[in-house]
Amino acid sequence: LSDEMRHSARKKVDLKTKPLGALGTIEELAVQLSTIQQTLDPAVPCRRMFVFAGDHGIVEEGVSAFPAKVTVQMVDNFLDGGAAINSFCRQYGIELSVVDMGVNGDFAAHPLLIDKKVAYGTENFALGDAMTRKQALCAIENGARVFLEKNQQSPCQLVGMGEMGIGNTTSASAIICAATRLTPEQVVGRGTGVDDRGLERKREVIEKALDLHRPSGDNGLELLCKMGGYELAGICGATLAAAASGCCVVLDGVISTAAGLVACLICPAVGPYLIAGHKSIEIGQRAALELMGLEPVVDLGFRLGEGTGAAVTMNLVDLACRMMREMASFEEAGVSTGNDHG
Amino acid sequence: LSDEMRHSARKKVDLKTKPLGALGTIEELAVQLSTIQQTLDPAVPCRRMFVFAGDHGIVEEGVSAFPAKVTVQMVDNFLDGGAAINSFCRQYGIELSVVDMGVNGDFAAHPLLIDKKVAYGTENFALGDAMTRKQALCAIENGARVFLEKNQQSPCQLVGMGEMGIGNTTSASAIICAATRLTPEQVVGRGTGVDDRGLERKREVIEKALDLHRPSGDNGLELLCKMGGYELAGICGATLAAAASGCCVVLDGVISTAAGLVACLICPAVGPYLIAGHKSIEIGQRAALELMGLEPVVDLGFRLGEGTGAAVTMNLVDLACRMMREMASFEEAGVSTGNDHG
Repeated sequence: LSDEMRHSARKKVDLKTKPLGALGTIEELAVQLSTIQQTLDPAVPCRRMFVFAGDHGIVEEGVSAFPAKVTVQMVDNFLDGGAAINSFCRQYGIELSVVDMGVNGDFAAHPLLIDKKVAYGTENFALGDAMTRKQALCAIENGARVFLEKNQQSPCQLVGMGEMGIGNTTSASAIICAATRLTPEQVVGRGTGVDDRGLERKREVIEKALDLHRPSGDNGLELLCKMGGYELAGICGATLAAAASGCCVVLDGVISTAAGLVACLICPAVGPYLIAGHKSIEIGQRAALELMGLEPVVDLGFRLGEGTGAAVTMNLVDLACRMMREMASFEEAGVSTGNDHG
Repeated sequence: LSDEMRHSARKKVDLKTKPLGALGTIEELAVQLSTIQQTLDPAVPCRRMFVFAGDHGIVEEGVSAFPAKVTVQMVDNFLDGGAAINSFCRQYGIELSVVDMGVNGDFAAHPLLIDKKVAYGTENFALGDAMTRKQALCAIENGARVFLEKNQQSPCQLVGMGEMGIGNTTSASAIICAATRLTPEQVVGRGTGVDDRGLERKREVIEKALDLHRPSGDNGLELLCKMGGYELAGICGATLAAAASGCCVVLDGVISTAAGLVACLICPAVGPYLIAGHKSIEIGQRAALELMGLEPVVDLGFRLGEGTGAAVTMNLVDLACRMMREMASFEEAGVSTGNDHG
């Protein structure tokens, strides 16, 4: 991406009627979107949210506070419009799709549902590989197709990456441990709400899996095969396709972040297209974001996933673009600048 | 406000299809709005932002990075639609009004402008009282009328309190020092951008003013007379009127917060109607919020005022109400609850 546009965008922001830097993060988002879109008048009229869903064999190890069948039940809830992400997308004019990447169940056709199922859930990665290399490549490709097929219908400028999958914080945490070289102790938190014993269990399971797989940590495809999930692979593929199409990608919590990190490992050039939507309470997320050089935009104490944090941030990106297009400069408004005591 | 409704609202949130507490601040806002509106289906279809403007005699002491005439120029910018708050209000469907409480200049009639001018700016409170008791009472009353007159046209459920007034962080900081019993060193920051010398100057000026006035600290009206501003008095009056009308009030940065604190000193019963919109970089704001028992909802690094932080938070309040009305419960959606390994 051109540094020249970044400088021009920074200059345009600095000449607007406000003290230098006074709109904080909104200014940074405006500059990033200008740089991505190569225009001083960025806009995100078409915004999409994909909720990638998949099941996880690792739940056999007792790592989740919720039973595995909740993945299927929550997909039904998304399709019925009753989940948090449905409300959030309605609030922000974001087009929502739910992608079955690897749910352990079947769904009737539905306007919100995109069927890209690779398998009925991953294998238990405490005992062996989560998926074959062929399955991982298929899932990445399916994720890319999800973005590209929608984008062909009407191009979008901003895409949020949500997910649903009971057990997927364990997969995400294992990937982050491998990629950051941190220990499960340093990385693993309570997910959507396991207790002390559950937390201990989760850390042991990941420790054991890391011992078993000894992943190299900088090979994204290997990480997905050994310890990944189909929804993570889907996010990875969609992120690669979106960035290649010049579309800005907003990540969500720790799972979405881990999948974004895998995309960065596979293709570091996606970095400038990424925004970290929400600060996770999962401690591993910070380490993953640091590796990508990203700072989360908001911290509202969410620990839900689904894309909820990304949705809030997508609205702030929209606000930033509007600010960039609409706000007057000191000259246009006839306002005196700072330290010009005339 | 009824505790019974608070408990019922908490229970409704807890039964929705998400882990307990997983929507963080959004859940707290939903419970607060339910309590204020005494309904389990809160809504904020009519949202208003008032930007109260006034000039400050204290600018003679060299406390601001911007020349005093910028207050007039920025009011013109608001009326022309070119300021940050104009973009923010358009983004969020918030009806914007600009209130001349005490600007040192005259304006032609304009649909966005409400003329409630009490004087052409305050007196220099380093040398004497900022305003007379009569002027302070008039300004509070005018602020209340601003809210009530609009509310009579169409009742609103959510109001943001913005401000514009070169020099007003000095007034707000002095009020916070007096109310919190903290020193200017502890309270006073850089406003919209004074340098090291300017910061030192600002602290000295406030120190001197506190020595001169020796305000009691718990008398809101006295604080306004001695060291206040017309826009702060306006916010105070509008806050009192809004809370009395059952309307939720969103404060903004340090100036709006100081004015909200004065309203709380005058009538502590307004407390449950208040939301702290944005965390200010001004260190005094935290002390003022602690005194009111409030936590800021967002921190996007803003240091602009105008109501920009309040506007972002008003949208999150809207989102919270929508979540409360729309999201399905575990029972409605047929989703298994946590730790129910069936």
